[in-house]
Amino acid sequence: MFVIGERINGMYKAVREAISQQNSDFIKDLAKEQIAAGADALDITVGPVKGDAKEYMKWLVNTVSSAVDAPLCIDSPHPDIIEVGVKEATGRTIINSLKKSPEHLEKLIPLARDNESDLICLLMTDSGIPHDINGKLEVAVELIEAVMMGGVEPSHIYFDPILLPVKNAQKDVADTFELMDQLRILTDPPPNMIVGLSNLSQKAKYRSLLNRTYCTMAMSHGLTAAIVDPLDEKLMKSIKTADILLDRELYAKSYLKG
Amino acid sequence: MFVIGERINGMYKAVREAISQQNSDFIKDLAKEQIAAGADALDITVGPVKGDAKEYMKWLVNTVSSAVDAPLCIDSPHPDIIEVGVKEATGRTIINSLKKSPEHLEKLIPLARDNESDLICLLMTDSGIPHDINGKLEVAVELIEAVMMGGVEPSHIYFDPILLPVKNAQKDVADTFELMDQLRILTDPPPNMIVGLSNLSQKAKYRSLLNRTYCTMAMSHGLTAAIVDPLDEKLMKSIKTADILLDRELYAKSYLKG
Repeated sequence: MFVIGERINGMYKAVREAISQQNSDFIKDLAKEQIAAGADALDITVGPVKGDAKEYMKWLVNTVSSAVDAPLCIDSPHPDIIEVGVKEATGRTIINSLKKSPEHLEKLIPLARDNESDLICLLMTDSGIPHDINGKLEVAVELIEAVMMGGVEPSHIYFDPILLPVKNAQKDVADTFELMDQLRILTDPPPNMIVGLSNLSQKAKYRSLLNRTYCTMAMSHGLTAAIVDPLDEKLMKSIKTADILLDRELYAKSYLKG
Repeated sequence: MFVIGERINGMYKAVREAISQQNSDFIKDLAKEQIAAGADALDITVGPVKGDAKEYMKWLVNTVSSAVDAPLCIDSPHPDIIEVGVKEATGRTIINSLKKSPEHLEKLIPLARDNESDLICLLMTDSGIPHDINGKLEVAVELIEAVMMGGVEPSHIYFDPILLPVKNAQKDVADTFELMDQLRILTDPPPNMIVGLSNLSQKAKYRSLLNRTYCTMAMSHGLTAAIVDPLDEKLMKSIKTADILLDRELYAKSYLKG
């Protein structure tokens, strides 16, 4: 399981302040802490900070890169901000994310190809998220065609079925398991799949329990990556346990200590 | 999710002693405790107690029935002991279990039909457990044919894919998810499926974590029942959370208190 740490995100007040004050120690610590907790890569989101988002993205990429040697998941709804982050990074990058919109396709596919970035493809279009599994599968087929035609290797593609809060969209959450089963048939070998996990439990009680239960269930349907809070120890232990149960990691009596 | 409490089992020393001493208070308390913790039914296994196993089974059935009003899962490898338990019970019973052997088929199918019992069908034969998914599916097809020909309604059939200890059979454990996906295609509506959960974590560390992680993953592949320790609170909370995530129970903020 490929774990991407979610914490460097301007949506969090403390991170937002660190960005606007250019407090690099805070950001570096947050990067190191997540890697130490088991994250394989780090998500980088400027978020709603006042000022020049592109300059902030550059600063974040450089600050994090000076602290840890890990792939960076360059995260923004705006392709031009993503572009700045990807070009600034020196190591492996993950583009988060592409949706089926002319602007996204035009800008992000060449960016992914030229930088050998991984590319997270949201199963949505300019007009929003399709209402049912079939609608999402249609978008997936169109996206994978466009992306492969654009020269990106299938192994670099991650589908994101878009995990909604269970509080408001319980049926949609339940449907993601079947959606993942169907997505796995689209390519051989099956495509990578990713979710932004914490969205599931927005404004819910028992957040960690909901997150880790969903995550391990989804892993058994082909989820290969997730953007999560790696500082949630129970979640990380559950992920490791699921990897054991799926025979992706060798069982050893002390597997949680390993 | 249909939860069957596993604790009334002569494999446990304290239960074995209670049985041989006819300590009905001990057994009644164990029955009440499991139901209070959320069990929907109770497994009854005499186990390796010295003496007349049939008499012990009768006594257990009567003792438990006098304490709680719940379906009983009559559990023995010997069809004649099962028969005694089923006939002694006054409420709904579950036969645990049938395998593909002439003696089992001959005795247990009419017993299930005549008593409207549920019937747990192990995916194994006299010669043992098939080595791969296809071998188990073949047994499943043969069993469902024999059982339905014998007059048992499909809604009363539970397939048990036989969960082995992850410590020794990691690949088999991982395969159960695909096996369950395949079993779900065999009948319409999909068949009930059950596992004896605790077997998974035999002689493993982190038993509860392994059990609850497996259980919720399996629920997303169609597991509808499990024989578990209902006194494991974390397990019971995880099961409830999985029911929410699968849209089988309505989400409410306080769903764990409900």
